[in-house]
This record gives sequence, C-alpha cells and structure tokens, in this order.
Amino acid sequence: MNPFKIGLTIGDPGGIGPEIIIKALSSKEIPKNVQYIIFGSSQVIKEEEERLKINITEKISIIEPESNINDFSIGKPSKNNGQLSFLSFKTGIEEAMKGNIRALVTAPVSKESWFLANYNYLGHTDYLSKLFPDIIMSFWSKNLKIALFTHHMPLKKSLQFIKKNKLISFLNFLNEKLKKLGLKNYEFLICGLNPHAGENGLLGEEEKKEIIPAIKECQEMGVNVRGPFSPDTIFLKFKDQKNKFIVAMYHDQALIPFKLISFEQGVNFTLGLPFIRTSPAHGVGFDIAGKGIANPSSIIEAIKLACQFSKKIVS
Amino acid sequence: MNPFKIGLTIGDPGGIGPEIIIKALSSKEIPKNVQYIIFGSSQVIKEEEERLKINITEKISIIEPESNINDFSIGKPSKNNGQLSFLSFKTGIEEAMKGNIRALVTAPVSKESWFLANYNYLGHTDYLSKLFPDIIMSFWSKNLKIALFTHHMPLKKSLQFIKKNKLISFLNFLNEKLKKLGLKNYEFLICGLNPHAGENGLLGEEEKKEIIPAIKECQEMGVNVRGPFSPDTIFLKFKDQKNKFIVAMYHDQALIPFKLISFEQGVNFTLGLPFIRTSPAHGVGFDIAGKGIANPSSIIEAIKLACQFSKKIVS
Repeated sequence: MNPFKIGLTIGDPGGIGPEIIIKALSSKEIPKNVQYIIFGSSQVIKEEEERLKINITEKISIIEPESNINDFSIGKPSKNNGQLSFLSFKTGIEEAMKGNIRALVTAPVSKESWFLANYNYLGHTDYLSKLFPDIIMSFWSKNLKIALFTHHMPLKKSLQFIKKNKLISFLNFLNEKLKKLGLKNYEFLICGLNPHAGENGLLGEEEKKEIIPAIKECQEMGVNVRGPFSPDTIFLKFKDQKNKFIVAMYHDQALIPFKLISFEQGVNFTLGLPFIRTSPAHGVGFDIAGKGIANPSSIIEAIKLACQFSKKIVS
Repeated sequence: MNPFKIGLTIGDPGGIGPEIIIKALSSKEIPKNVQYIIFGSSQVIKEEEERLKINITEKISIIEPESNINDFSIGKPSKNNGQLSFLSFKTGIEEAMKGNIRALVTAPVSKESWFLANYNYLGHTDYLSKLFPDIIMSFWSKNLKIALFTHHMPLKKSLQFIKKNKLISFLNFLNEKLKKLGLKNYEFLICGLNPHAGENGLLGEEEKKEIIPAIKECQEMGVNVRGPFSPDTIFLKFKDQKNKFIVAMYHDQALIPFKLISFEQGVNFTLGLPFIRTSPAHGVGFDIAGKGIANPSSIIEAIKLACQFSKKIVS
C-alpha cells in the first residue's frame, strides 16, 4: 500500500507554527508510512530548521502558495504574516478537496494578521464555516471529548440558538459524522445551559422547553444520549471515562474546562468536512516565538488523530 | 484571652454533614483555643459518633433548634431532614447576629429536603440573600479565589445584569469587604462575558459597552482592577498566583473551573454579612452518606478560613 498523504499548514510565520511543525515531523511519536506535505514558505521552514538545528526537509515536501512575500515579523502580527498563513491554509483546503491529501493539520494563525491582510475571519473554523455551514467544532484529548453546539458568537446569540429542533439536527449530524469515522459506541452527554441545569425550571426555562424535549426525541430516534447535566459537575464526573462525548451549549462552557484539563495535548477537530481537519488547541504563541521553547505535544496529537481517521477512511 | 466561639450547622442529617463535622472536629488540622458549637440534633451526632467510633461531644456543645423531630432519612431528602437542617441554620444565624458566635460554618443542605419542609430556598446563599441582598458569593482555595458578580439566576438574566453601574457598585463593595477582612493587596481580575472577551466587539458588545467602562471608572477610584480577560484562559493564567481575585460574570463561569481546580479543598465564603460564614464547596453527598467514607478536607478548610478571619475581627 502506498503511504497516504497528510498536509500541514505552517500557521502564522511569526508564531510558533513553523517550530512545532518541525519538532513534530522530526519526532518519533508521529506515524510512519505517511507522506507529510507542508503548506507554507520554504524560506521560513529553512530558517527555523537552522535555528532549531533540525533537518526535516530531506524527506518532506513543501508546497508554497502563490505569493511572493518574504518579509515576515517574528513575535507579532503583520499583513505579510496574515497573507502567507491564509494562503497556505487556502491551498491546503484546495488540495484536500481535490483528494490529493487525506487530512489537513493546521498550525495556529493570528486573526490580527489575517485582519491586517484583509481576511476578515476569526480563525480557521470561522473560515471553514463560511464554506461548510454545518461543520461542528470539537475538542479531543485522552481525558475529554467535547462538541460545541454553538461557538464563535456573542453569548446572547448562543442563548437564542438553544432551540429543540436545532439541537435535534445537531445531535443527529454529530452522530452520523462520528459513525462515518468508525466510532460507534459513543454516548452523548448534554450540558445544561443554566446553573444546575435549570433546577427544574427555577433557574431557567431552556432545559425544560428545549433541551430535554430534544434529548427525548433523539433517544426515540435511537441516538445514545443523556442529560442535561449540571454544567459545573459534568466535566469532573465524566472526564477520563471512555466513549463519552460531552455536548456544550456555548464556547466557554467547553473551552474553560477543556483548556484546564487538556491544554498540553488538546486537539481541535472539525467534524462534517469532506476531509479530516485537526489542529492544536493552543494559540499562535507570539510571546515565545523564535525561542525554541514551544511544546509540540498538541500538534503531535493533532497529527496522530488525523492519521488515525485517515486510515479508517480507506478501509 | 478567652477562646472565641465558632458555630457549625449540621446540614442535612441524611447527607454527609454530621460525618464531616465529627471528622473535622476530631482532626488535628483545625485551630485550637477556639470553642466550637454544633447547631443540630444531639441524637444525630451521637449516632454518627457511634458509627464512626469517634467521640467529640465531651468537649463540644450542641445547640438544638426548637423542634422535636427525630425521624430522619439517611441517603435521601425528606421533610424532617429539611426541617432540622433549615432550623439549625436559622438558629446559627440568630446566634451569629446576637454576637454569641463570630463565625458560622455550614455543612451541606439539600434543597429538595428544604422544599419538602416548605422552605423554598435554593440553599444557604439564597436564603441569606433574602436577609442581606448585597452579599457576595465567593469561592476560595489555595489555588484560586473567585467572586461571582451574578450566581443563582437563569443565564439569560445574568446577561441582563451586566451593566456598568452595577459592576462598579459590586467591585467597590467587594473591595471594601476584603479590606475589612484585613486583605489589602489584592488585584481584581475581571472575566469577559463573551468568547475571547468579546474580541473587540466582534463577539459581543457587553465588554465594550459595560465591562471596560466599569473597570476604567473603578481604576480611577483607586480600585486595583484589570481586565476583561478571555474567560477560557484567565483561570489557567492566574491560578496559583498570590493576591489575585478573579471576578466571574455568571455561575458556571466560576464554578466549572473552581470545581475542576479545587474540588477537594474549596470553600464557599459569603462576603458582606455582619458575621463570617463559610461552607464546603461540595454538595450533600446522599450517595455516600452513612458509609464513613466522606472526605472532611473541604469543611476543615472552611473552619480554618472562618477562624482566620474571626481572629482579625478582634484585632
């Protein structure tokens, strides 16, 4: 069997993206028999290799996006940084859509750089949402898996989104996408929206009116789902349990516990795309860029997860 | 100097309250030269002492509330449980208000038991809020201190509360109450409400319109305050740092991280009362009641904190 191809986008060249990609690709932890391709600038990779005294480019190919920018700012956002990181990402998506790579692992970008370059998206997932409106943002680690019912919107808007029918569609879509990845025994655990999951209506109506009826209807459809659970204990209760998938109602309900529990090894996994896309859960790290001290654990986990599911797509 | 007096309410007699109180009062970790008084039922305490084979009543006095109920349900809520735990709490408050005790440490109650006994409060803090509307709910541990701007209300209502003037009053009141406790070098760190603290208005307006102006005005008044910080990283960033006091905008923004970081040793501390009141951060524990396996760490910390600040009140 020929090795399958996985793409990695370089992220913001002024952040820790190039460093963690080089460290990850030279690590023994990532799967062999996979052909890795970097989307980004050869010059940036070469300079970072020299700084780190690691050589990876002998065995890795680099695809450069169509642009002739070469002047990047280390440790801060810039227009050129934004242009390179956006175009590398776009090229990666195009190659994935053509079937030339099975998965795309994206190093962190800076939305400030994107804004300076006139790409007005809040990040990878925001851009992907414009192309594929149904995609689901999820976070994976050994300890915890969380899918986000709503994410990059004002909290007030997330509250307006809590509607029975929307939640039913979401849970069915999530269930279907996980099955496609070969995952069949997951139980979904639904967070309440309000303190103590609404305390039987005393602390909010959304559980009674929207969330509980949605859960019941999904159970009748055969979806393995339970809840709603009190948001302040569900993570403590179910972390480290196998085959559990927590569903959070809004961005910080998922990200506050996820970052506390799984910061070092967390993976952001976009579900519902026609290809696999993973990414480290941390940010661009301008404050530690160029110092050689960035920890590649999270992107290593992102690569491992991408390879794991890319194999399943074949079989 | 005569030893000062600290009261402990028994909590729900069917939960772990009696057990953790007996374990705590027989522990070497709690301060000496303090006179501890239990508010509750002598019979319940005696039965629990026999079960645990620990004797504390030689040196501890028990004040019984005016009621002649004696039939309690272990491991589940009941009307009698609710009556005893509510009346013990009420008696404790009365003694504190009379100045007969300096602090009240409350073991966990069951709101279901309270409801069955027709005391329609969601818990200690909810009842205290009816008597003292300005009190502040806060959570303390070695790693983290958090004050809650809003707490036991629907999330939708918490959002409506985010107003500049309300936040200014809250911060000034909090600042004043901590100063009265002898704490003078605290910095307040304010959580944003929206994802990424509103991302400069792209993900919500409350930061720009209400929270940032309130912070600025408080800074001008001399309050040591900074923010707003992104809610999904503030806890990771400032936990374990000394002299920091995080201010959360709503219940789960505080309780999700607090329970993950400090579950075993967390203390619920009500600020703004005319006396000290602390409590363990965990619940009533019906599932493990009567088994002798309850962990008293949290109530021990609650007693230590109560004693620490009771001493300061004297000086």
